[in-house]
Amino acid sequence: MKNPSLVLNKIDDILFEEFDAPTVEEPHDVIVEVKKTGICGSDIHYYAHGKIGDFVLTKPMVLGHESAGVVSQVGPAVTSVKVGDRVAIEPGVPSRLSNEYKTGKYNLCPHMVFAATPESDPAKKNPPGTLCKYFKSPEDFLVKLPDHVSLELGALVEPLSVGVHAARLAKITFGDHVLVFGAGPVGLLAAAVATKFGAASVTVVDIFDTKLEMAKDIGAATHTYNSKTSEKPISANPPSGHAPTVVLECTGAEICIQQGVLALTPAGRYVQVGNAGGYVKFPITELATKEATLHGSFRYSFGDYQTSVGILDENYRNGKENAKVDFEALITDRFSFKDAIKAYDHVRAGGPIKCIIDGPE
Amino acid sequence: MKNPSLVLNKIDDILFEEFDAPTVEEPHDVIVEVKKTGICGSDIHYYAHGKIGDFVLTKPMVLGHESAGVVSQVGPAVTSVKVGDRVAIEPGVPSRLSNEYKTGKYNLCPHMVFAATPESDPAKKNPPGTLCKYFKSPEDFLVKLPDHVSLELGALVEPLSVGVHAARLAKITFGDHVLVFGAGPVGLLAAAVATKFGAASVTVVDIFDTKLEMAKDIGAATHTYNSKTSEKPISANPPSGHAPTVVLECTGAEICIQQGVLALTPAGRYVQVGNAGGYVKFPITELATKEATLHGSFRYSFGDYQTSVGILDENYRNGKENAKVDFEALITDRFSFKDAIKAYDHVRAGGPIKCIIDGPE
Amino acid sequence: MKNPSLVLNKIDDILFEEFDAPTVEEPHDVIVEVKKTGICGSDIHYYAHGKIGDFVLTKPMVLGHESAGVVSQVGPAVTSVKVGDRVAIEPGVPSRLSNEYKTGKYNLCPHMVFAATPESDPAKKNPPGTLCKYFKSPEDFLVKLPDHVSLELGALVEPLSVGVHAARLAKITFGDHVLVFGAGPVGLLAAAVATKFGAASVTVVDIFDTKLEMAKDIGAATHTYNSKTSEKPISANPPSGHAPTVVLECTGAEICIQQGVLALTPAGRYVQVGNAGGYVKFPITELATKEATLHGSFRYSFGDYQTSVGILDENYRNGKENAKVDFEALITDRFSFKDAIKAYDHVRAGGPIKCIIDGPE
Amino acid sequence: MKNPSLVLNKIDDILFEEFDAPTVEEPHDVIVEVKKTGICGSDIHYYAHGKIGDFVLTKPMVLGHESAGVVSQVGPAVTSVKVGDRVAIEPGVPSRLSNEYKTGKYNLCPHMVFAATPESDPAKKNPPGTLCKYFKSPEDFLVKLPDHVSLELGALVEPLSVGVHAARLAKITFGDHVLVFGAGPVGLLAAAVATKFGAASVTVVDIFDTKLEMAKDIGAATHTYNSKTSEKPISANPPSGHAPTVVLECTGAEICIQQGVLALTPAGRYVQVGNAGGYVKFPITELATKEATLHGSFRYSFGDYQTSVGILDENYRNGKENAKVDFEALITDRFSFKDAIKAYDHVRAGGPIKCIIDGPE
Repeated sequence: MKNPSLVLNKIDDILFEEFDAPTVEEPHDVIVEVKKTGICGSDIHYYAHGKIGDFVLTKPMVLGHESAGVVSQVGPAVTSVKVGDRVAIEPGVPSRLSNEYKTGKYNLCPHMVFAATPESDPAKKNPPGTLCKYFKSPEDFLVKLPDHVSLELGALVEPLSVGVHAARLAKITFGDHVLVFGAGPVGLLAAAVATKFGAASVTVVDIFDTKLEMAKDIGAATHTYNSKTSEKPISANPPSGHAPTVVLECTGAEICIQQGVLALTPAGRYVQVGNAGGYVKFPITELATKEATLHGSFRYSFGDYQTSVGILDENYRNGKENAKVDFEALITDRFSFKDAIKAYDHVRAGGPIKCIIDGPE
Repeated sequence: MKNPSLVLNKIDDILFEEFDAPTVEEPHDVIVEVKKTGICGSDIHYYAHGKIGDFVLTKPMVLGHESAGVVSQVGPAVTSVKVGDRVAIEPGVPSRLSNEYKTGKYNLCPHMVFAATPESDPAKKNPPGTLCKYFKSPEDFLVKLPDHVSLELGALVEPLSVGVHAARLAKITFGDHVLVFGAGPVGLLAAAVATKFGAASVTVVDIFDTKLEMAKDIGAATHTYNSKTSEKPISANPPSGHAPTVVLECTGAEICIQQGVLALTPAGRYVQVGNAGGYVKFPITELATKEATLHGSFRYSFGDYQTSVGILDENYRNGKENAKVDFEALITDRFSFKDAIKAYDHVRAGGPIKCIIDGPE
Repeated sequence: MKNPSLVLNKIDDILFEEFDAPTVEEPHDVIVEVKKTGICGSDIHYYAHGKIGDFVLTKPMVLGHESAGVVSQVGPAVTSVKVGDRVAIEPGVPSRLSNEYKTGKYNLCPHMVFAATPESDPAKKNPPGTLCKYFKSPEDFLVKLPDHVSLELGALVEPLSVGVHAARLAKITFGDHVLVFGAGPVGLLAAAVATKFGAASVTVVDIFDTKLEMAKDIGAATHTYNSKTSEKPISANPPSGHAPTVVLECTGAEICIQQGVLALTPAGRYVQVGNAGGYVKFPITELATKEATLHGSFRYSFGDYQTSVGILDENYRNGKENAKVDFEALITDRFSFKDAIKAYDHVRAGGPIKCIIDGPE
Repeated sequence: MKNPSLVLNKIDDILFEEFDAPTVEEPHDVIVEVKKTGICGSDIHYYAHGKIGDFVLTKPMVLGHESAGVVSQVGPAVTSVKVGDRVAIEPGVPSRLSNEYKTGKYNLCPHMVFAATPESDPAKKNPPGTLCKYFKSPEDFLVKLPDHVSLELGALVEPLSVGVHAARLAKITFGDHVLVFGAGPVGLLAAAVATKFGAASVTVVDIFDTKLEMAKDIGAATHTYNSKTSEKPISANPPSGHAPTVVLECTGAEICIQQGVLALTPAGRYVQVGNAGGYVKFPITELATKEATLHGSFRYSFGDYQTSVGILDENYRNGKENAKVDFEALITDRFSFKDAIKAYDHVRAGGPIKCIIDGPE
């Protein structure tokens, strides 16, 4: 069986290729027919720059890691899904023997194989991405979608899980005042998670009013702050009237990191989600004096995908008209698989919040 | 009754003065006759510079906050100590109504009254220090010393509690690999606490071999590292053979903060104890990618004094010859109260680990 | 000033009395004019039996501890409330020096003075209850009510806090499956809290269909179970389709306690809220084998009242018509102060969920 | 290759048999030549009664699950051990896909394959025990023994891990007052763990003075209590002078369970280690009123074996003469493999603390 795929050949060079479709080899293997795939900022980064930090593209790589699809084949030991089930695909599979995996932190596993992330060992191929017709996954890295959650929303589960992971590290519970820096997809989804976890206020900070309006319009934020046009820094003037108990920093920008620490309430929790790309000037004395806690957050790990699907389930259980958060509004652009290269160029040009590509027919 | 006291009048100007001795006013008040007081680096800082961060000396202030003594008078409601009891004095008393106090984090109470720390409100006096004959404290900020713990060791309880607080924030338990930056009193005591809490290895880093030798000689460290004379940074070459699960940064030096984060194991815990004096260049991406946790640590709070006295109790219970850590070796210099100014000048000149001043006769 | 009060004289004997109104004595004292008071099952128990466990009524006692009112006078140091503010009254004040108070667990303070709870020391008076015109409280045991939360709902904050406390001990977060035994006021409120904390399912168990219907009607439960009329025990047949991750046992009945443990998922959390009145036959091997955790829950403590008011605030922020939980439906009966004895007899006869008595005019 | 093995054929019937030795099949498989095996109370229970709870012996089973040995063969992917390494064998291997395994709680995995524990599925063989010459294990369920830890002590790692697991559930840290019920192997080892974790006092309760003496002699306990000969129950008279902050109940006896709850300090932690065999009369109101926490403890899980070996490592690092706890004293009886049946009869007759059987020659 053939497997049409979208391949990042090298910088500025994306092309279509056909490979052999994957087959069930291990008892718990599942083949998923991919239906919807989101474009991630990291995809664009590889497309434009060929690397992210230590991850360097040195050989062609199938793109895509934000996907949902339909189960088309299952291995003999598979019990949790069956052919025809609609599933979100968790794109990174760790070593089953690593201590990180054994303690619920498999995102830290050094042996992680993550879709569409360049492999550094020249002897090994790049892990396959999900922008193809058939994708193979062990059954326990698939999460079934409830009937009232669309495949498109299923493709949103990946970035949503980044927000869930951060919110769980921050231990957000009912009554927290949450400050989110960044109104890109991750920031908006992190804000939505904070809302669903019962935050008393969720303030989103960005420099574009249109993005901030979206944060409010979709029900993810109770307050917004334009840090470019406001006179005072947010630490001096929190719009909710409360110093945040939790900061989710989703930009990686130095000024946001600084403002996050300065704004935080004593004994507050700060989670670094955005990639700062190295070193920043950091107000460590401020953090020490107020005994804040800073958690690093990297992708997502055990339980995050399940919680993300649970959030979508709960949100849409009583119909779209009663949904607290309008997740679908984040999907601003859609392309067919044959227009996938156009989709990448469109996102690279800027503008879309989240662009979804259909699976190959 | 008279209360001979040592007063920091202004920068470079310490003098003796006699005030009226404090009296029991509240039912839980206790008057302690101070017997031993350690000189803290912060005392020297006020002496030489007149301020630490936002704390600025604008009026005379009785010095001293690391003290032990003997109970000389008790209020009518006091039940936990009696006249003649030997006690360590916790020098900061928070508001009894603050949320910080109610949640075991009274070190963060904005209404804290802390001995020998300048008061910013011009309408209020500076909180009295402990370098005097009679010091007043509520009974619950005194901790009784066991028979086999000397008053001199009682004066060590204050800086020891800084180490205990950091170790508790780091949740150090049996089997942790602990890396401590700095072999001054706080670093050495933090290392000793890590040892007592069951760390599998305790590595102390400094730039002076004599201090590093002391760390090993007193039984506080299993390994040491001279970061000045070693070729490689410690993050590349941990002497214990293990990437630390816990870092206690007790210097505030930028390079130590950076090395601490780089050295840490994935999902490790880092506690900032030393005062960096503001902003540092900080490897936040490294911290985020390895999902480390950074806790700020400020002084000490509920239970730390009790744990410190418990550590000394356990250490000396079977006699000095069986003590695992030689805390007494840290007390390198002793002065009588009438030579207290000389003591300050001696410490200011550098050299002593911990200098103790006797109480007035 | 006079203070008309409702006094439980002895078993079966309630009467009206007038005392002198309390006055501001301490700087943080506040006088509240009580407006609404709920009748608690414990009040009825004292009325009918003269004791609850070790608490024995040996002298007359002003009744009432579930109250809200309006601030009528404030002490000189009071800053958090002002005259005219509408407040919920937390009825138990602990010792300000106890370790329990210092660690957020003041409900365990042995020196607690709790309204309308008999004092065992014959030398001391019973703590005054809130069924009077003027009640004195330190400012930090009052919580301001938002504009859109009525005084009647303010009287509900006390039992609601029992549910909040249990839910916080159980660490209920988004996605938990919660099983609540008992559809009395505490069970219903605990279920409502679980719902507000983001539980994926909330199942309430009782033996009366009318109560179970209310659990669903007010939006507190997603599922219900009549343990009397169902063929199988709930542990064999959870209506949500999920073994509960959390059990809140609010009846104290032996069979419910047993079923709660048996129903629980491995590593689940069980909280004992109901008073079993002593020993029960307990499936400890089942609990051990599945490594469940059982927490005892007693009243409420630091932060619970604030969270309760936060729940009401969030619930009614967008108008009653958009409230997720209909808390007001729990208030089934209302009496004027002059009919307060009738109110007690009415509740004693059974039937009301929650009966509210107005304050004296 | 032949594999001489000790087989429990049925109740009262143990015999020797020779099977084919296991071979490397999976890349991470390791073959260990078993050198030392301890006899566990559960072995004796199967020998005498043919079952423990739901685990019923219905077909022959190789005995033994407390073993240490020497690596004799490794699979191609094995990196953590090599031929000749001395290792402790963790006898239970869970499903690599289960949620329990993924969250560090693999002891709760329903697919656990545990050595010498009867399989309920008639279609499956019993999992092989370790009382044989060659035992196969995945590499990550072996823990290397340091040079100064003997193979005999390696066989003690299994029951020691039961104590470690309980102590970790109880979060025992420096300064805790720990009360242990039972001075059998598990109780003594749990007490030893509490000591190593820094407990301020460790009190062991039993009804035999000889066992209590051993608890003190080996350095595991600071205090002991004979509950048979003492006049008062221990809850009324804790010999350490402190109500315990932690109870480790290792007997399963109803009276001990009751006393454990009654003795506990408010907000204390109780861990049920012993098997009560079903229901007990339980003081749940006492537990609720003091807001204690009860944790069930079942075997051991992620990290416990490593911590156990770490305890032995630390204990013997400076020579046996400086060991704080004399673990070797617990090994009271030794038999050769050919006398293994005698060993079982000897233990069944009562008396030995821990009996060790050598591996086949």
